[in-house]
Amino acid sequence: MIIVLRPDASEREVDHIVDRLRELGLKSQLSTGQERTIIGVIGDDRILQNQPLTALPGVESVLPILAPWKLVSREFKKDGTVIDVGGVKIGGNKLAIMAGPCAVERLELTVGIAHEVKAAGASILRGGAYKPRTSPYSFQGLGREGLDYLIEARKQTGLPVVSEILDTRDIELFLEKADIIQIGARNMQNFELLKEVGAYDKPVLLKRGLSATIKEFLLSAEYIMSRGNRNVMLCERGIRTFETQYRNTLDLAAIPTLKELSHLPVIVDPSHATGKWNLVAPMSKAAVAAGADGILIEVHSNPECALCDGEESIKPTKFKELMQDMRKIAVAVGREL
Amino acid sequence: MIIVLRPDASEREVDHIVDRLRELGLKSQLSTGQERTIIGVIGDDRILQNQPLTALPGVESVLPILAPWKLVSREFKKDGTVIDVGGVKIGGNKLAIMAGPCAVERLELTVGIAHEVKAAGASILRGGAYKPRTSPYSFQGLGREGLDYLIEARKQTGLPVVSEILDTRDIELFLEKADIIQIGARNMQNFELLKEVGAYDKPVLLKRGLSATIKEFLLSAEYIMSRGNRNVMLCERGIRTFETQYRNTLDLAAIPTLKELSHLPVIVDPSHATGKWNLVAPMSKAAVAAGADGILIEVHSNPECALCDGEESIKPTKFKELMQDMRKIAVAVGREL
Amino acid sequence: MIIVLRPDASEREVDHIVDRLRELGLKSQLSTGQERTIIGVIGDDRILQNQPLTALPGVESVLPILAPWKLVSREFKKDGTVIDVGGVKIGGNKLAIMAGPCAVERLELTVGIAHEVKAAGASILRGGAYKPRTSPYSFQGLGREGLDYLIEARKQTGLPVVSEILDTRDIELFLEKADIIQIGARNMQNFELLKEVGAYDKPVLLKRGLSATIKEFLLSAEYIMSRGNRNVMLCERGIRTFETQYRNTLDLAAIPTLKELSHLPVIVDPSHATGKWNLVAPMSKAAVAAGADGILIEVHSNPECALCDGEESIKPTKFKELMQDMRKIAVAVGREL
Amino acid sequence: MIIVLRPDASEREVDHIVDRLRELGLKSQLSTGQERTIIGVIGDDRILQNQPLTALPGVESVLPILAPWKLVSREFKKDGTVIDVGGVKIGGNKLAIMAGPCAVERLELTVGIAHEVKAAGASILRGGAYKPRTSPYSFQGLGREGLDYLIEARKQTGLPVVSEILDTRDIELFLEKADIIQIGARNMQNFELLKEVGAYDKPVLLKRGLSATIKEFLLSAEYIMSRGNRNVMLCERGIRTFETQYRNTLDLAAIPTLKELSHLPVIVDPSHATGKWNLVAPMSKAAVAAGADGILIEVHSNPECALCDGEESIKPTKFKELMQDMRKIAVAVGREL
Repeated sequence: MIIVLRPDASEREVDHIVDRLRELGLKSQLSTGQERTIIGVIGDDRILQNQPLTALPGVESVLPILAPWKLVSREFKKDGTVIDVGGVKIGGNKLAIMAGPCAVERLELTVGIAHEVKAAGASILRGGAYKPRTSPYSFQGLGREGLDYLIEARKQTGLPVVSEILDTRDIELFLEKADIIQIGARNMQNFELLKEVGAYDKPVLLKRGLSATIKEFLLSAEYIMSRGNRNVMLCERGIRTFETQYRNTLDLAAIPTLKELSHLPVIVDPSHATGKWNLVAPMSKAAVAAGADGILIEVHSNPECALCDGEESIKPTKFKELMQDMRKIAVAVGREL
Repeated sequence: MIIVLRPDASEREVDHIVDRLRELGLKSQLSTGQERTIIGVIGDDRILQNQPLTALPGVESVLPILAPWKLVSREFKKDGTVIDVGGVKIGGNKLAIMAGPCAVERLELTVGIAHEVKAAGASILRGGAYKPRTSPYSFQGLGREGLDYLIEARKQTGLPVVSEILDTRDIELFLEKADIIQIGARNMQNFELLKEVGAYDKPVLLKRGLSATIKEFLLSAEYIMSRGNRNVMLCERGIRTFETQYRNTLDLAAIPTLKELSHLPVIVDPSHATGKWNLVAPMSKAAVAAGADGILIEVHSNPECALCDGEESIKPTKFKELMQDMRKIAVAVGREL
Repeated sequence: MIIVLRPDASEREVDHIVDRLRELGLKSQLSTGQERTIIGVIGDDRILQNQPLTALPGVESVLPILAPWKLVSREFKKDGTVIDVGGVKIGGNKLAIMAGPCAVERLELTVGIAHEVKAAGASILRGGAYKPRTSPYSFQGLGREGLDYLIEARKQTGLPVVSEILDTRDIELFLEKADIIQIGARNMQNFELLKEVGAYDKPVLLKRGLSATIKEFLLSAEYIMSRGNRNVMLCERGIRTFETQYRNTLDLAAIPTLKELSHLPVIVDPSHATGKWNLVAPMSKAAVAAGADGILIEVHSNPECALCDGEESIKPTKFKELMQDMRKIAVAVGREL
Repeated sequence: MIIVLRPDASEREVDHIVDRLRELGLKSQLSTGQERTIIGVIGDDRILQNQPLTALPGVESVLPILAPWKLVSREFKKDGTVIDVGGVKIGGNKLAIMAGPCAVERLELTVGIAHEVKAAGASILRGGAYKPRTSPYSFQGLGREGLDYLIEARKQTGLPVVSEILDTRDIELFLEKADIIQIGARNMQNFELLKEVGAYDKPVLLKRGLSATIKEFLLSAEYIMSRGNRNVMLCERGIRTFETQYRNTLDLAAIPTLKELSHLPVIVDPSHATGKWNLVAPMSKAAVAAGADGILIEVHSNPECALCDGEESIKPTKFKELMQDMRKIAVAVGREL
């Protein structure tokens, strides 16, 4: 860490800073430049990042040198993490396609969609039993019953299921019934929930928050890993910007960036990112081209009657076509699908 | 609600839309313009806002006419809500100043700060016992013990306390120990937590999410109110933008906007909004001038050693001065402090 | 256009609004709903969009029905525009690759890079003679001399050249020397410059502003077309968001969106979008997968000594590889390169 | 400047970096930490900021120590700049209120508004003769004739006038007719225009770009000052964010921040910032409380018929009230108005 001093910092202020660093068990190295004096701090940067050093008189700014995370970093673990979910590998050469309805609605519908996405080549079934909705008057999901429908669909198709948890009190339920626990964008910084899923080894799909930086995203993954759970997937699902043509702005540069900084698999959700069914196909293809390890897609047999996010769901026939298109691109970038 | 049809929408598509609206119990009124045909929908707009109407073939866009909230709106309740917290009125002519340390650290420190902010004129004591920290390696708060320190400070000073809840499992604890339950920015869309605090009548201070629109902010308040709790305060605490000079961008236009749209009191937190102690005073004064009903300020006797957010905390002497300055501005805008 | 009235709008206010619309030559149609009265306005929406209707007493909000642009819209011209630049077609089935140094520096360097990018398959040479730099102390470009170097490179390689104009006073120079005139992101709303290039039929590459919405972007293209110039290309080059890992956030969903709303060709610039050379390849591939009509890439034989944006430039060998990779993806999405 | 090396940087790469720095006339100081080696660079940081150092193999990141501007900085000039515009002082203890119509429309109207704002206490008349409009179909201003109307208003009232320039070719005209030349938000990075107004000593009001950081804003002011013109005022007018309730988000924390970093006067424009007349008064008051040196307000006698931005203009009577309210707040913060 580098501490930049104000041009008018007094000797007494500098001494005070050096003393304070010593109290924290750190050594400091003064370096006087033409216009600024700086203090290089030797020791664990991560301790310092929690100290309010800019509150010290005479300090102009503080520049961290090290990333604030550890377990998630590529520096810590060179090889990419491959997560095994009931035999499906996520993070390897083959892309994982997770598809299904936004919300679980009826048993037959859920099972029907599961059969269709499996036939088209999906390897994981997605479906929301507990739905985080912006309005209290929107459909809130079937809850426990919805999870049971997913289990029935898994039984019939063999597809492992991913579903979103909303409340720490439901952890037992999800450990029992889901194959991957999803932490949604709105809960990316619900730290109690992160700690809870971190305490087990059940795979977690962590979605990037609506306005989370890459740094905050990785720190949330670090929360989970620091509790012991190594099976974390990162999911880019669009960030909030000023543009109103789509629900969010899909940030595909996040894919190579996350893969460079971290060893964790990166999944992309073009459905929630755009909120528009006709953008799902081009953005899925782009995500594959940019190096994603998997794609999470909303598929519904009757979008116009879907109880949640029908405007961004594609029909099974459209999904089948998209699978073929994505497969060609996967091959073009040296991957399988 | 207005449904705008695509210029190439077929008659069959139009009929299908009208049928679908009828199924939902709504009447429709067709109007053919020079370049577009539109359908005016008569009935409760709020039902429609949950329907994926843009998924219907032939629909170009859907324009809502009514706001999606009800209980929070000024239209629903003309008079401003005044919340009574142990005798302190929030939302009336007199501004409520809530001050104290970011995190509760030690008993004597907490009690000492409480005495100082009270002497300067604060009417509520703030302090975090459970801290939502971006990094898992940062101080996470004292938990239950921290709440007890706050209670001791309340006992000695008479100041009601506001503290942040992070987990639905802690609701009983907060109902017992806090006077106002704070929902932090990162949990503004933790809907399970909103529902939980909505089930009681304990006052709630709801912070605006980092990238929450005014609309989403009010819908989160609606979540709480829809469960029965009428004692909700809205807290503007800065939004995320591209600017990196301050932690967040304080959105003061939110004050008159929220007061126009809603009857709920509006509090401003300049400490978290800016993340810089030297911006706290000018932004507090600006918030009072813009019509805030209260200000939430971090005060710490020794910011450079604070375990949390010391860089944005002001010292008690500085707070005392600020109180005097804010009082002059309050008078200039016809309020008391 | 739909005018939504306030719930407390008086009869007199309504009459006044209707009168005002009549003065503007428009008919109005009143429709009374359960909670709001609305006025449907019949006539050219575009006249209305310039009227301050929300300033009329009794008006709650105004909802436009029609897009504010005309000439750029897909509705106005069904077939995609194909622009011919010295025999190179932009907007057809074959993608146009524009490559070259950020800034033109020396004659031999420029000609050398031109030969290399041509050999790799590029069809247009890019190079900045006039450079818009954030700091007045940065290299500002060679000016007229730089344009002459580009002309020499064109003479030797046959590649048409694209270069950025900064000042209306340089229009004659660019008409004479450039094959495509680039309007940079910072000048997207320099309306005098838009009008100037609109007065000729020289092809224009219009870059999206740093924080321009799709709507504003298309309106800037409309400025050019409304003056008569039909040869406009739209260039997505990243937008400003809160993320600081890359210079800008490349918005690839803009590609299918622009192609749906407009008939103009869409080019993507991954170099400026990311500001990092190692993100150029994945983002170029993603752009091709998402349906771009062309890619604009910075290539420099010695990036570490480049006078401008060396950190985002790739070397010719890397560019050659990228061309091969993009070609595979182009084929996978049914295009040529 | 600090160069942080990658953990895997080879000795050869380090030598190469040091050599490159030497070529640029700079000394370097290696410092090996536990997890990273860093190079402290001694010499003028501003040279380095134009070098693509991250393009050098082995470099992880580059951290600037010094601000990239010089002439605008408070460090360069301790005392606040006071600009004299025809006897009106801007930047001193007394606030400057600039008021008038968005666009100059008719002579009598312009003169009438000028008399009214003067009577209420304004000291500068604002009015647009050349209007930068998002749509080519909107009113583009009266041009030269509009400037003449402003001159007539000045003649009758004695108020100096501020008006916006759009094109470098109009510089002579503005030097002759305007007292303050305004550079609008959309032209904040029209560097040719900045250089042009920088070549004279005519006062310039520079507006912050829609998505300009504080850093970019100050660099644009530096452009003007680096050409010799010392009479620059900075104008905060709202930045672009995701919020859609107001046209822009007024960033009032920019006031104390700009005043700390720079010696230039800071003006606030609440009309363009919000785009809503009913937010002008609270935001003007907040700006005064936050320490602004002046306020720029749109006033129109008949907003509903204004040819430009009527929805954000206030009427003269409302302006008069606002002046009284602002005066009270100015006094409360130790200023005059």
